[in-house]
Amino acid sequence: MTARQNFAYNLRSLRSTKGISQERLADLAELHRTYVSSVERCERNISIDNMEKLAAALGVDIRDLLQPNDNPSDRIR
Amino acid sequence: MTARQNFAYNLRSLRSTKGISQERLADLAELHRTYVSSVERCERNISIDNMEKLAAALGVDIRDLLQPNDNPSDRIR
Repeated sequence: MTARQNFAYNLRSLRSTKGISQERLADLAELHRTYVSSVERCERNISIDNMEKLAAALGVDIRDLLQPNDNPSDRIR
Repeated sequence: MTARQNFAYNLRSLRSTKGISQERLADLAELHRTYVSSVERCERNISIDNMEKLAAALGVDIRDLLQPNDNPSDRIR
């Protein structure tokens, strides 16, 4: 898995676990909802500044969003 | 410290520890030397794909480059 794939997977996973919608997360991070959606679909080569905004909005360390994931069947399509 | 600052600091620190020049690291990561230099000076809002390239070129985990640093006197100027 690439860093981008791990980030996308962890972002969606942590957001869902916390019961936060994409729209709410986007508001908290001061980003656009469609941008958050495209990051979760692994379509965006997100920058470090925006990675940090999303981590802060979720209340996690930026490194938590880069944790490798080992369950390929549970991946972002 | 921001994620960008931590990344810049860790990149320069790990590169120096390994005795690799900016030019050599840029070659290994398939990036331009001036780009690596500007990332180390904290001037660039680097993307996740390029962060991964630099981590791979240094032989470290991308998360190692985002480790917080607690010694302000030892910072990138």
